Amino acid sequence: MYSFVNDYSESVHPNILKAISDTNFVQCPGYGTDDHCKTAADYIRKIVGVPDADVHFISGGTQTNLLASAAFLRAADGIICAQTGHPNEWESGALEVTGHKLLLEPTVDGKLTVENLQHAYDINSTVFTPNPGMVYISNITELGTVYSREDLEKLSEFCHSHGMLFYIDGARIGSALACSNLTFEDYGRLCDAFYIGGTKNGALMGEAMVIVNDDLKPNFRRILRQRGAMLAKGRILGIQFEELFRDGLFMELAHHANDAMTIIREGIENLGYDLLTESRSNQLFPIFSDEILKKIDTKYQYTYHHKTNDGRNCIRLVTCWATYFEQCHAFVDDLTRWTEEVKNNK
Amino acid sequence: MYSFVNDYSESVHPNILKAISDTNFVQCPGYGTDDHCKTAADYIRKIVGVPDADVHFISGGTQTNLLASAAFLRAADGIICAQTGHPNEWESGALEVTGHKLLLEPTVDGKLTVENLQHAYDINSTVFTPNPGMVYISNITELGTVYSREDLEKLSEFCHSHGMLFYIDGARIGSALACSNLTFEDYGRLCDAFYIGGTKNGALMGEAMVIVNDDLKPNFRRILRQRGAMLAKGRILGIQFEELFRDGLFMELAHHANDAMTIIREGIENLGYDLLTESRSNQLFPIFSDEILKKIDTKYQYTYHHKTNDGRNCIRLVTCWATYFEQCHAFVDDLTRWTEEVKNNK
Amino acid sequence: MYSFVNDYSESVHPNILKAISDTNFVQCPGYGTDDHCKTAADYIRKIVGVPDADVHFISGGTQTNLLASAAFLRAADGIICAQTGHPNEWESGALEVTGHKLLLEPTVDGKLTVENLQHAYDINSTVFTPNPGMVYISNITELGTVYSREDLEKLSEFCHSHGMLFYIDGARIGSALACSNLTFEDYGRLCDAFYIGGTKNGALMGEAMVIVNDDLKPNFRRILRQRGAMLAKGRILGIQFEELFRDGLFMELAHHANDAMTIIREGIENLGYDLLTESRSNQLFPIFSDEILKKIDTKYQYTYHHKTNDGRNCIRLVTCWATYFEQCHAFVDDLTRWTEEVKNNK
Amino acid sequence: MYSFVNDYSESVHPNILKAISDTNFVQCPGYGTDDHCKTAADYIRKIVGVPDADVHFISGGTQTNLLASAAFLRAADGIICAQTGHPNEWESGALEVTGHKLLLEPTVDGKLTVENLQHAYDINSTVFTPNPGMVYISNITELGTVYSREDLEKLSEFCHSHGMLFYIDGARIGSALACSNLTFEDYGRLCDAFYIGGTKNGALMGEAMVIVNDDLKPNFRRILRQRGAMLAKGRILGIQFEELFRDGLFMELAHHANDAMTIIREGIENLGYDLLTESRSNQLFPIFSDEILKKIDTKYQYTYHHKTNDGRNCIRLVTCWATYFEQCHAFVDDLTRWTEEVKNNK
Repeated sequence: MYSFVNDYSESVHPNILKAISDTNFVQCPGYGTDDHCKTAADYIRKIVGVPDADVHFISGGTQTNLLASAAFLRAADGIICAQTGHPNEWESGALEVTGHKLLLEPTVDGKLTVENLQHAYDINSTVFTPNPGMVYISNITELGTVYSREDLEKLSEFCHSHGMLFYIDGARIGSALACSNLTFEDYGRLCDAFYIGGTKNGALMGEAMVIVNDDLKPNFRRILRQRGAMLAKGRILGIQFEELFRDGLFMELAHHANDAMTIIREGIENLGYDLLTESRSNQLFPIFSDEILKKIDTKYQYTYHHKTNDGRNCIRLVTCWATYFEQCHAFVDDLTRWTEEVKNNK
Repeated sequence: MYSFVNDYSESVHPNILKAISDTNFVQCPGYGTDDHCKTAADYIRKIVGVPDADVHFISGGTQTNLLASAAFLRAADGIICAQTGHPNEWESGALEVTGHKLLLEPTVDGKLTVENLQHAYDINSTVFTPNPGMVYISNITELGTVYSREDLEKLSEFCHSHGMLFYIDGARIGSALACSNLTFEDYGRLCDAFYIGGTKNGALMGEAMVIVNDDLKPNFRRILRQRGAMLAKGRILGIQFEELFRDGLFMELAHHANDAMTIIREGIENLGYDLLTESRSNQLFPIFSDEILKKIDTKYQYTYHHKTNDGRNCIRLVTCWATYFEQCHAFVDDLTRWTEEVKNNK
Repeated sequence: MYSFVNDYSESVHPNILKAISDTNFVQCPGYGTDDHCKTAADYIRKIVGVPDADVHFISGGTQTNLLASAAFLRAADGIICAQTGHPNEWESGALEVTGHKLLLEPTVDGKLTVENLQHAYDINSTVFTPNPGMVYISNITELGTVYSREDLEKLSEFCHSHGMLFYIDGARIGSALACSNLTFEDYGRLCDAFYIGGTKNGALMGEAMVIVNDDLKPNFRRILRQRGAMLAKGRILGIQFEELFRDGLFMELAHHANDAMTIIREGIENLGYDLLTESRSNQLFPIFSDEILKKIDTKYQYTYHHKTNDGRNCIRLVTCWATYFEQCHAFVDDLTRWTEEVKNNK
Repeated sequence: MYSFVNDYSESVHPNILKAISDTNFVQCPGYGTDDHCKTAADYIRKIVGVPDADVHFISGGTQTNLLASAAFLRAADGIICAQTGHPNEWESGALEVTGHKLLLEPTVDGKLTVENLQHAYDINSTVFTPNPGMVYISNITELGTVYSREDLEKLSEFCHSHGMLFYIDGARIGSALACSNLTFEDYGRLCDAFYIGGTKNGALMGEAMVIVNDDLKPNFRRILRQRGAMLAKGRILGIQFEELFRDGLFMELAHHANDAMTIIREGIENLGYDLLTESRSNQLFPIFSDEILKKIDTKYQYTYHHKTNDGRNCIRLVTCWATYFEQCHAFVDDLTRWTEEVKNNK
């Protein structure tokens, strides 16, 4: 069995492991005050083009989102979020636990539009509702779609002209940059804060929160501590981001992930299967009949997404920095053969 | 400069690093459902003598304490804790953020007594106070002292006869077991829940929460997720505890840490210096004059604890699994020489 | 202008005001420990048929709901609630602030069905979602509809066979009982907890939380205090519920409110106007053209609910214990005349 | 039995009751948007000398304090507070539930000094502690003592030169103003926010939060709603403060309360009894032997405060707007006689 379940099935890129090993017995100060964290933060400030950004290293994506919610918002604030957004469907209520209601908007493909923001802003305008204080999006979205530069510019403009913060969950920012016209600098220019996801792009664990808006910077490290998010051996996060951002490894791995999925996607499209959304990222949501799915089950692992109205099956396939291209080709070959078999049986 | 600042200055025991490396490209399911976590949990259930205990792996100690507070308590509950306790002085208000007030008790040496529990229970008996719902202790305490088996038995008995949970922070449980008559089984027998600290005893990061009381088990994993404490690559915690508990490595490292401090302690005692508390653990709180401290500053790092009433300086020294015995001997030799020098100057 | 905006436009029933006045200089113990609170609680225990129910008096409905959420749930729990439910649309995120996510279900007419519960239960079955711990409904709903005894029995059965609490917001319980086959005893029999709303049925302020489930009783008064919901002069709540429940005043006022709306409803129905939902309660949601609404605006106040797809206007009318029947007749007469005028203009 | 237990044993000043009665059937908009609230807020803005202050009416003191904590602070902030402060000893953990740790300071007589602030500021200066974000005091304190104008000026100056908010709990502000050189305008000048307590000075319930600092004003009403603190019939609070502040009734009642206690205090001092603290307010903490206390128990109610080290009994006596002067004289007469009797028995 080969797994296309997610982008954290393997462990860590060998360069990172070597760097951890090489520095193992060097004594470092704790809690992210070591030189590795400092250097990694410098790399990131440079690549996002914000020399005075604050950069903090955090263990996971849900943790980073809840820190954003806890640290950046005031008591009355709610968070505008797609119904399919990660905080609504995958975080077990983490943002609500920080005391902030999600102001949910339906979307076609996981992407919030300016119309969504306007609607949420309008219906949350009384004392009986939270104040729409922040917009949350993830790019890549949970449905594999990507916001372009123009998309982000429109959302950013709306947020900042309506007194709302704009925050981007970059759990899969590598994949987003590798399949769009976006750059890290666009994030630095358009967001109040965002994070760069390491866990899904070659790190053992680790996300880099980048705070651009000065108002959001004070006391963030106290909040890290307060929410249990400050590792004693913070070096372990610093070393990883140092490796990922010293010589371009981060984007190299992201391109690998997308390229792997391109092999699969082109194969699936050639065979004429439907896709739930248009995706050039490392996530794909193809739709298969029961018969095909039964055959896939014999050799591959994936995530079941939903039963379509006409009785077919939408599944999620994910590739990553560690996916073997040969396995992608093998999947396409298998699917081609199985498609033929199913056709002949009819 | 050599650092005795804490027990997380170095990174990770080489055996663990090797195990991470060996399994690097093996695909594992995420979120702690992999076989490494299962095996490690089995080792721990066995060693604590509670076959049906729940074991969860968590990244850090403050995170583990806040999960205990969030998961185990009801809304009205407060937590009895020493004024010098970790949650009061070192966690930036993490437990209060979960909605539970600390019911603070003064102590002589960082150890809560049954008299403390009785007092806290009595003064928190009205609707104007939280319900005393849980007793928090850490063993080793923040002052380097250790609760013996008899100490824990008394506290446990009081808690359970007064409807309170008994929770032990085992960030330094290895050091505690290595310098007392306690066993892991005592913890399993006397607590409702406790944790086994990996971060300060050879792991990159990682604590193992052991839940003994059945009432506290349901939905703990949902709470892990909700508080941002569930690593996608949970294997990284499982592998570490597998290594630490397969063949006794955990206690081996703990003994090393205590033995290293024994060298230092005996040297300091022989030179006639005062100690803040009696400690056989890996933490020592010696008291030095300004002149001696100035000399120590030239070669060693430590944590300054407080200025004594008579103008001397109480500092904290910590050793760990990675401390070189030679460095401990060197410290004693240096201190002996400096003591002589200071004496002669007078 | 006469207001049909809500059922709290007037102040307090004269009997209650007299009772407050009569006892004004009697010294009472504070915080709800006075004899008025005791007597009122006894009346309520009797009428709901649960001799050992706990009864607590609280100032307002949102406060009561947030106390239920805070006190009854464990950390992992979410709350199943209609999308149109009061906590989702009218409480400014109060329940989320207690740390519990709303698990929202769409409904046709504001009433949750067993199918809703099953759906919410099924999709919230993983560690990535809250535990469906409680079902919240209000009866009368926010759309004026009422759950019958059979409806509540089905929901109750589902909750209790699936390990979920069943809680009913009775802000308008009087109106519900006055227009359905339900009795107070049904609530006592079917719920884990519910509240009896005084604010909207003749009291200055005040809701009576009735806790039936023994597990939910401990320390509720500490939580009252902790959430700022314990009035120093608790007598003021006790006296009101004493008056409302001594001789049947509560249901008398509820019938008056429904009877007032019946006058309006029958008039509107006779004129052939559409209604958003079928309602026999003190809330009605008629749909009017722009021309009619403009005429209504000249003499009456109401709440605008929404613009229908075909461009008409759904509004909310509310009557209460203090509504004059003559005003209801006047409204019908006016509407009849305006309807004729609009027809003739076309 | 006559009760000196507290200043909320009686109900409400007759003028207020009359005003409630007079307006009973007038329809008002809900939630504090009525004209009574507007007029009352205007009176208060004028008396505190801050024309653009925000004024909100709230049901109780603990509720007001928790709203201050929730609304005014950021996530990292803690609250400097005396160990004897109301939030630490009487609020069942209400402020901690809003997510903010109390940074407790010992005091001699319940009053925080600049030295306390400096100490708390210094020891809470690392990432391991909350940020000292606000100073809480109550004036009158929980020990009956009063901060003078000079005291408040010093604290205010320290707060504002150290980036901390200064908040005063005025549950007994009437008594404070009536026994010191302070004016309402001093509060308006020195605080970021404070509240004027009605519950303990003649109202049924009600406190007026006065927000002076512009940064703290946005969305406060949403937070009122979110915390369940917004009464549907908000008029009931507006009417009361209208009565209290239209013609000086508020201070008239406060003087009455203090004058009543002056009778008792002078009697007790003349008889030579010790007092715990120096108080000119409506609270007194005399110290009596067991024999005297047993006699007091036969005719009067009070609050037991603590057993002194030498075995005597410190109790709390409280007077209020409704205390009969004759009862105060009677108490002094009784105490004089009992003192004589006890003396003769020896």
